[in-house]
Amino acid sequence: QGTRDHPPAQAALRERLLRVVVSCFKRHGAAAIDTPVLELRETLMGKYGEDSKLIYELQDQGGELLALRYDLTVPFARYLAMNKVNNMKRYHVAKVYRRDNPATTRGRYREFYQCDFDIAGQFDPMIPDAECLKIVHEILSDLQLGDFVIKVNDRRILNGVFAVCGVPESKFVTACSTVDKLDKVPWQEVRSEMVGEKGLSPEAADRIGEYVQLHGGLDLIERLLQDPKLSQNKLAKEGLGDMKLLFEYLTLFGITGKISFDLSLARGLDYYTGVIFEAVLLQQENEHVEELVGVGSVAGGGRYDGLVGMFDPKGRKVPCVGVSIGIERIFSILEQRLKASGEKLRTTETQVLVATPQKRLLAARLKLISELWDAGIKAEMLYKKDPKLLKQLQYCEDTGIPLAAIVGEQELADGVVKLRDVSTREEVRM
Amino acid sequence: QGTRDHPPAQAALRERLLRVVVSCFKRHGAAAIDTPVLELRETLMGKYGEDSKLIYELQDQGGELLALRYDLTVPFARYLAMNKVNNMKRYHVAKVYRRDNPATTRGRYREFYQCDFDIAGQFDPMIPDAECLKIVHEILSDLQLGDFVIKVNDRRILNGVFAVCGVPESKFVTACSTVDKLDKVPWQEVRSEMVGEKGLSPEAADRIGEYVQLHGGLDLIERLLQDPKLSQNKLAKEGLGDMKLLFEYLTLFGITGKISFDLSLARGLDYYTGVIFEAVLLQQENEHVEELVGVGSVAGGGRYDGLVGMFDPKGRKVPCVGVSIGIERIFSILEQRLKASGEKLRTTETQVLVATPQKRLLAARLKLISELWDAGIKAEMLYKKDPKLLKQLQYCEDTGIPLAAIVGEQELADGVVKLRDVSTREEVRM
Repeated sequence: QGTRDHPPAQAALRERLLRVVVSCFKRHGAAAIDTPVLELRETLMGKYGEDSKLIYELQDQGGELLALRYDLTVPFARYLAMNKVNNMKRYHVAKVYRRDNPATTRGRYREFYQCDFDIAGQFDPMIPDAECLKIVHEILSDLQLGDFVIKVNDRRILNGVFAVCGVPESKFVTACSTVDKLDKVPWQEVRSEMVGEKGLSPEAADRIGEYVQLHGGLDLIERLLQDPKLSQNKLAKEGLGDMKLLFEYLTLFGITGKISFDLSLARGLDYYTGVIFEAVLLQQENEHVEELVGVGSVAGGGRYDGLVGMFDPKGRKVPCVGVSIGIERIFSILEQRLKASGEKLRTTETQVLVATPQKRLLAARLKLISELWDAGIKAEMLYKKDPKLLKQLQYCEDTGIPLAAIVGEQELADGVVKLRDVSTREEVRM
Repeated sequence: QGTRDHPPAQAALRERLLRVVVSCFKRHGAAAIDTPVLELRETLMGKYGEDSKLIYELQDQGGELLALRYDLTVPFARYLAMNKVNNMKRYHVAKVYRRDNPATTRGRYREFYQCDFDIAGQFDPMIPDAECLKIVHEILSDLQLGDFVIKVNDRRILNGVFAVCGVPESKFVTACSTVDKLDKVPWQEVRSEMVGEKGLSPEAADRIGEYVQLHGGLDLIERLLQDPKLSQNKLAKEGLGDMKLLFEYLTLFGITGKISFDLSLARGLDYYTGVIFEAVLLQQENEHVEELVGVGSVAGGGRYDGLVGMFDPKGRKVPCVGVSIGIERIFSILEQRLKASGEKLRTTETQVLVATPQKRLLAARLKLISELWDAGIKAEMLYKKDPKLLKQLQYCEDTGIPLAAIVGEQELADGVVKLRDVSTREEVRM
């Protein structure tokens, strides 16, 4: 349940999609690493808040207690700590596992790919952070997914907001996860959860409401930097200063048109410590494909400066910022579009079918195909001793093979091959 | 235990290795499929004989009882049955899991990659089987692993041998797994296991010994076809007839020089029903690298005509033949060779580093690198506001970046960029 086989057509589409993502990561100079699907259970525990219950555990068959990785970020942090790596720009494309309720039409599975790009190391502020946003912008543009917006916020600004609104520090995390729901439910519902379940005072909730409904650009940052309350809060001031710097860099990258500083963005995971962001596809008129798969977050990430320290025996910190591309949701969208367009994706790359028009010519086919393979040409033949020529040409049409190399008795006698263009039916002897 | 992280240098080597393997699979017209790492426990049970105890099981957290896949063949057969596929040529490169005793220096892990190519479908005899052997030949040649031999046998021939030597049919499987040890221990030891543990008569064992120590080519096949006892056995006759046909096809492929018909080859797995094969690297003089990692089987496979039927509710059979490339052992060999050669593999593909020679030029760097990324050029910069030029050039040398695009105050004023070849130090303004 919640897993799936990828038949060839899907595997080919996925390969095409991953090629775009990985070539962007490589364009930004990232190296690949690989880590096991299995992690020690203790590595994963206490990293995902409430979601820890979704971790798949292996049966105790003797030896270490193991679990399946839940994401690629925690294994990356574990890797950095274990190998005492201080600087690294890496990407990782691999499957992760969550015992969640699957919603397969919306691209939510229990086994799914993540595509992560992260920059680890102590650097000047916001330069790597800006690159992560540039990467999201490039990938969503390259994939031609239509209009999108990348929401940006900072955990320090959020915590500053909570502080100046009178929320006790012990309730920052829970207030944060409530704010996170603002992209799905209206403020009134979020407010009543804050006051009801979370036990904030109605006044605090109202004050929070005034902030978290704000979104904008550099102008909003400037306004908040002048805000009489927020500007007094050290964390918020730091966060806003960095946000301003981030916007400067994004302006140089020429991508601020798609960036929205959005105070309602909170992100679920515990480990973020600074900038957070999330890319959302925007519904388009005259395009109903997205309705089927749901429009929503297709990439997200942020800064997590404390995670590596949790794995280091001496608590040595390695600041990190990274982005994860929501490949499954994008895959669902591309799949629906492909279906709607009627385009048929080839599942193989075969260039030529080696065919014979008469019987008893298997030996000639085997000899020729062997030569082609040895010359690096992608070639197939039917696994029949005496197939009909029509069947062979039909196979080309069914699978999109553009050329047929035909050896008949005449060609054998003349020492030539007849090369046929399957679609135009043009033939040349060579 | 028995798993490992792949740091960038290893991940790059693995990518290079997999590229060779996958491009061979594609050259032969295979499509990719993907199946989950998780399978139902019942799917895996009863498929691997004694080795079933090595299967990793997931804890029962409610819902289905799951296990990690043990190989890619059983999931492929399950896929064919479940989707009622009758014909398919597919490859699959993915990780599998075995709770075995790891021997990591010899490339034996608990989590490791398999690279499988299989042809499913009812076809004329030995044409797909010959292609599998051609693939092994191509991959081992392309990887320049040195001399190798591909041993070939047929389960039907082995069973015929057991029958004519007086082994009761109930002991064919156990006799088979004993014969399988002949590549590691001498005949005398195998013989005493047969007579002692396995309870065969000394006469039967001696008769088996006469056969299973034979190896050769077409001549041996012809001799055995004339063998007074074997030629009377229906199974053996079928197997030998097909073996002769296989050698004909392999002659047309021009690869018989590396093929040995070897009656001692048995292969461990239960599900083989016809041709079986295994490729072995041969030790070379003046080359001691292999000693470190052990020389042995680097590819294997065979025909399994009954496996798909085990998953089909109506027992519908789909004949299959396939090959698995032992990528981990090959990886260990390549890794040792690389180390011995002193060659340093690049872990990134970055073409140009964007650098500045003076302070306060971060904006210029950000603008230029953004243009390069948008033009599809693989570019990096240091994440420092004011890095020293020497540090920037040093970074190029350390990571193998061939070019530096330098923008200083003069270049900015002139509206040019200075492009520097890192190794020759040549510079052009453009």
